[in-house]
Amino acid sequence: MIDRLIENIERLGAPVVVGLDPTLEIVPEKMLADSAKSFDETTEAAAFALLKFNREIIDAVADIVPAVKPNIAFYERYGLDGIRAYIMTVEYAMGRGLMVIGDIKRGDIGSTAAAYAGHVAPSPLFGRKFEIWNEDAVTLNPYLGADSITPFLDAIKGRDKGVFILVKTSNPGGADLQDLPIMPEGAPLYERVAALVGEWGAGEGLMGGHGYSRVGAVVGATHPKASARLRELMPHTFFLVPGYGAQGASASDIKQFFDTHGRGAIVSSSRGIIGAWKAEGKGAGHVGKSARAAALKMRDEIGAVL
Amino acid sequence: MIDRLIENIERLGAPVVVGLDPTLEIVPEKMLADSAKSFDETTEAAAFALLKFNREIIDAVADIVPAVKPNIAFYERYGLDGIRAYIMTVEYAMGRGLMVIGDIKRGDIGSTAAAYAGHVAPSPLFGRKFEIWNEDAVTLNPYLGADSITPFLDAIKGRDKGVFILVKTSNPGGADLQDLPIMPEGAPLYERVAALVGEWGAGEGLMGGHGYSRVGAVVGATHPKASARLRELMPHTFFLVPGYGAQGASASDIKQFFDTHGRGAIVSSSRGIIGAWKAEGKGAGHVGKSARAAALKMRDEIGAVL
Repeated sequence: MIDRLIENIERLGAPVVVGLDPTLEIVPEKMLADSAKSFDETTEAAAFALLKFNREIIDAVADIVPAVKPNIAFYERYGLDGIRAYIMTVEYAMGRGLMVIGDIKRGDIGSTAAAYAGHVAPSPLFGRKFEIWNEDAVTLNPYLGADSITPFLDAIKGRDKGVFILVKTSNPGGADLQDLPIMPEGAPLYERVAALVGEWGAGEGLMGGHGYSRVGAVVGATHPKASARLRELMPHTFFLVPGYGAQGASASDIKQFFDTHGRGAIVSSSRGIIGAWKAEGKGAGHVGKSARAAALKMRDEIGAVL
Repeated sequence: MIDRLIENIERLGAPVVVGLDPTLEIVPEKMLADSAKSFDETTEAAAFALLKFNREIIDAVADIVPAVKPNIAFYERYGLDGIRAYIMTVEYAMGRGLMVIGDIKRGDIGSTAAAYAGHVAPSPLFGRKFEIWNEDAVTLNPYLGADSITPFLDAIKGRDKGVFILVKTSNPGGADLQDLPIMPEGAPLYERVAALVGEWGAGEGLMGGHGYSRVGAVVGATHPKASARLRELMPHTFFLVPGYGAQGASASDIKQFFDTHGRGAIVSSSRGIIGAWKAEGKGAGHVGKSARAAALKMRDEIGAVL
């Protein structure tokens, strides 16, 4: 999975992943109203509007970016109908040749983590194996430690799948725990997590052919000062870098997340791309066009600093 | 929600919550086979078997325990069909008068956390409010800090809902991050998290009438040595205590999680109760009976030490 991601990034010259985090503030009103004509004023209508919106975005960016990253929270909020839209979004994106990073941030104790690992591994059932979620990679929360991660490592071994583990998140509150100084030397907690992620990713059967592990790290674009140190601590860890654009980070902030060959990271933007039509004051007909223009702009901004 | 939980615990004399974490190793083979007759060999059949199993457990314990705690991972593993079984389990348990703690361990940055808060708050849609998930309380992961928690606090304010935030988890790997010594004094990370949870729970509109906040903490039963200190650090925080039974903790281990009045905590057991029929080598007809006996035994064991 990580080799495929790296190759697609290089083929397109775009270390860019589009966050598919649609809210009804970003989805055009007409799209929701049309959906309500078919499904009445229900969660099914809301979910179908999200799916329709995502398809427009996916169609508009499928040939210029390697991957999309739907955050399941934006679908889970509408219950079963929403989760159906998430699953259909994953399928649609894959059908258009995009890789899919499921932003699920799951984390639980060993036996439970094995259940969550169904996102990236087939579930045995009736003597067969069911591929149920089928994202290319998912994000994980490390607060429960090694035994919450191991079932995922076992699941992705020998398969074309990956994980990205939260190290330093892009939000202000991330500092509350992640920046706490650990004894004896006082390095922040996230550096300890970084070291663990590096170790986990060095396990047998996890390293890809381009020098990066299928166990990646999430490091927020909003922390340029931490970037060089994290790159140094995790030389073989691929970075998923959220927080570009709407959350305030710019291209110059993210240069150090990449290695000296301009590899090793993919930068995520959600609202900056999927909400571009609205930010520009355009009509609903511009959803795809504005998203494409925003993604190209982001690609070029990042390309200019690498 | 927290007052209602405390009152139900006292009415029944049972600070016990039954973890509804069914796997196909615990569900009787016949139950799955029967389900496959109706739904073929599909995830729908697996999900229906889980639901049917849960109903037997719920029917067997509804009059002796105040609450159940389904962990969504065991349902999510079967995709959409599994999540439907989760939702139907929540509804069924509530219909039988049980409170439901949704063990979802979600955590994400502010705007995304607001979407996850749909678990405990209605989602506005088409000018109306949709109660979609409707658990009485859910568990949360604190790794992303205050802004990942605040949307939930806003969501439960003025509503009969609650949250339990992971502080010290029951699994061995929990030590990897949670036990790291924080400068300057070297107290473990989980004590810092405990202090934060205490602060968050002291916010306006969150304290219940019995001296406990609707913002609770998850503290593993497997850490008796930490229990007195955590009780001291969080005098107004109600504890959800997993790890009893199958994970190795006994009644004497959990005494200090309670306050001097024998209040302030609810102990969770999953496999020890729902898998009792199998551990005892009984047939499928004993699922409910064995679960009830195991829950009564746990109630009495805990009652004896309080």
